[in-house]
Formats: sequence, structure tokens, C-alpha cells
Amino acid sequence: MLSKNQIKFISGLHQKKQRIANQLFFAEGVKCIQELVQSNFELEHLYTIQDDFEEVIAANKTLISDSELKKISALTTPNSCLAIFKMPQEKAIIESGLIVALDSIRDPGNLGTILRLCDWFGIEQLICSKETVDIYNPKVVQATMGSITRVNVNYVDLNGFIAHVKLPVFGTFMDGENIYKCDLPQEGIIIMGNEANGISSELEQLVQNRLTIPRFGNLQKTESLNVATATAIILSEFRR
Amino acid sequence: MLSKNQIKFISGLHQKKQRIANQLFFAEGVKCIQELVQSNFELEHLYTIQDDFEEVIAANKTLISDSELKKISALTTPNSCLAIFKMPQEKAIIESGLIVALDSIRDPGNLGTILRLCDWFGIEQLICSKETVDIYNPKVVQATMGSITRVNVNYVDLNGFIAHVKLPVFGTFMDGENIYKCDLPQEGIIIMGNEANGISSELEQLVQNRLTIPRFGNLQKTESLNVATATAIILSEFRR
Repeated sequence: MLSKNQIKFISGLHQKKQRIANQLFFAEGVKCIQELVQSNFELEHLYTIQDDFEEVIAANKTLISDSELKKISALTTPNSCLAIFKMPQEKAIIESGLIVALDSIRDPGNLGTILRLCDWFGIEQLICSKETVDIYNPKVVQATMGSITRVNVNYVDLNGFIAHVKLPVFGTFMDGENIYKCDLPQEGIIIMGNEANGISSELEQLVQNRLTIPRFGNLQKTESLNVATATAIILSEFRR
Repeated sequence: MLSKNQIKFISGLHQKKQRIANQLFFAEGVKCIQELVQSNFELEHLYTIQDDFEEVIAANKTLISDSELKKISALTTPNSCLAIFKMPQEKAIIESGLIVALDSIRDPGNLGTILRLCDWFGIEQLICSKETVDIYNPKVVQATMGSITRVNVNYVDLNGFIAHVKLPVFGTFMDGENIYKCDLPQEGIIIMGNEANGISSELEQLVQNRLTIPRFGNLQKTESLNVATATAIILSEFRR
């Protein structure tokens, strides 16, 4: 049973402002919640319509109804459970190996998919500009499918960070070098740009290696690849 | 100005049943509509909040208000225009070159992204199983970004089609051959499986070449790649 105040509080966590003020975020669905519980994420409270979490002690869980879940869920079709977690402290940035850096990625689904790709391709560090969508946005948490527990994510002043980092800097442009013909190292920063505007012109000046994914379509009309699919192709090329 | 009946009719086109009964579908947004108008798609009617389509004759367009657009749009944040088009007749299947075949792809965003990838990588033919989401679903049309005008799409009994086609058949599995080490031809059919269940076991028996995208993560926990990002990596490998 949920009180009006509890519903108001949990619904508040749909907003970034409330998440930061309370240092809490939430996840939905058995699989995602289990991955978070089994990792270093500290469970604040679990709300579930069926008591199938043996690993969670009674004091930390509340049985709720379908209609209560609907009120607190961020999903059109709610799952069976929603759990609130403490936001972990940001860890130090790992300044070695391959790093993906995001310049103002706005779509939660894109950020979630890119985090999942980092996990698949063994990228330990994801750097986000301050303008990039919040990693604890419910739609991002949902799209990561648990990868959020395995990739280190930091929000930084991206221009300042890139200006001082001691790794080769790569960026994708329409007029770069054919990525299939480049020698790609096992260390470096790969910058992916905003969905509509690409990499900002300030940041572009700091890119040492301009890459292009060649287009094979006969009609030269295809405008661009989605940033998440472009990231998939680029990470595949770096790792193959 | 829209009548109640018009609003009801256009809203009906959100459903597949009504689209098929009327042989009509709709698209939203200036760019997408312009691409369709400039291609072989026959415009039935344009509804717009600002008259910025000089190429469309007055008889074929209606100026509407923001609130009217909201009533007929499939988008949470409607664009400035919505256009109804006649569904073109299915063209004959192009049985040569590289073909992508989809086995029960259910998510409209995934189908749209895959169509856009086909366009980018010069794949002329996309084959969908009958269980795959409708290509004229508004969310698919939106996600294709105009690629729907450049790739031939057919819905078939996929098992029957694959059983009789005279091209090598590829499929992606967890236990296939490392895709980075295979010789990949310029002709063939690449089957991508359902989001939750992969390629069906019946269809699996018809796959001659089992491929795998290797996983590089240290912790062997990452469960799978999203089908659209997997398609991106596979098409990139076939074309590079």
C-alpha cells in the first residue's frame, strides 16, 4: 500500500532535479533491478506486485497493486516492480584504454544503447558533456539493460577535459578518413556528437583524427546514421 | 479546419487494420514528407499549421491549428505537418546482391533504424516475415528518416522464401563463426532475429553460415546487443 506522499515522492524522481536533490534514482523490471542489486548499487526500497525478490529483506520492500505501480512507473506498460537506489558517488576517470566521449547526446534511448555498446566492446569509461542527458533518467536506465553497473560514467566540462587529456582524440565527420582504411590504436578517445548538430565546432578543433564511415547507397541521399548505430560501427572497427 | 469525421478518419490510420482497409498511411515532419513527395509516393492530403509546401497544390492541403494537429498526430510533441499518402503496391523482390531478412522484429524503432542502415549500406532489398511490425506504422515511418523511399520492402512467409532462395543464407547466433575472421561475399541473405528470441528454430535449420559478433567486455555478463546495433556491425563487416 502506498501513501499519497510516497507516490508523489517516487514520481518526483522522474525529474532530474529531484533525483539530484535526494541522490536517488529508480529502475524497473526484475532483470534490471537484480543486476543493480547484485552490483555495488545500494537499494533504498523495492516496490513490487509479486514478492519474487528473496535476496531483498522485508524491511526494504513493499507489496503494491498494479494500479499503484502504474502511478509511479515511467513506462507506458509497467513491469512488475520498481526499485529506488542510492546514486553512487562518481568514481575517478580511467584515463587509459579506449574511452567514448559524448558531446550533448540528448536522446535517452541513444545514451542507453551507447552504454550497452561500451559494455559489449569492453570500454570501461564513458565521458559525457554536462549537456548530455542524465544517465539516471528512467529511460536511460531502462535502455542500458544493466550495463550501467559495468561501465564508469562521468559528467565533465568536455572541452576542458579533451584539451588536457594525454590520449589521441578521434571524432566522426562527413569528410574524415575512411574508417575501414585507418590504423586504429587500442588507446584513445572517440568523440560522438549531438544527434542534430554533430560535434561542436569548439570541440572539433581538438580532434586530431577525423574519421568517416563510408556510405554505400547508390543514391547519395541518406543523410546520416543514427549516433548509436554509428557508435556500434566505430567501436566494432576499433576492436576487430 | 478539420471536421470530427476527418479527425476520426486520420486517427484511424494509426491502426494497421485501417491503413490496410484504406490503403493509406501517414508521415509527419517537413523533411520526411518532402522526401516522400519527391519520390514515387502519391500524396493523398497534407495537413499543416504553416503553408510552407509550395510544391503541393492548394486542393491537396489544409491549414490546421496546433490543437488540431495534436489530435491527429502520433507524436508526443507533434511537428508542424502531417501528410497522408497512398500505400504503393509491393514491387517484385530483388533476388540478388545483399538482402536483409527480418524474423519477427517487433519494435518500430528497430525496424526504422534497420531500414535506414540498409539505405546507408546500399542494401536495396529488405524482406520481413509476416510477424514483423508494419513498415507503415507511424513510428517506423518516423524512424526511417526518408529511407522508406529508397529501399524495397516486402512481407513474405519467411521460412518458405528462405527455403527456396538461391543465395547463401547468413544468420547471427551466440555460437557462430567470428564475423571479423570470415570471408563475407557480396551476395547473400542476412537474417536478423526477434528482439527476445532471436532467429526461430525452424528458420535456423535453413541458415548455412552461422555468424557471431565477438564480445570484448571483461565481465561476461553483457547479455546481447540490440538487434539494430547488431545489424549495423554486420552490414559494416559485409561492406568494408
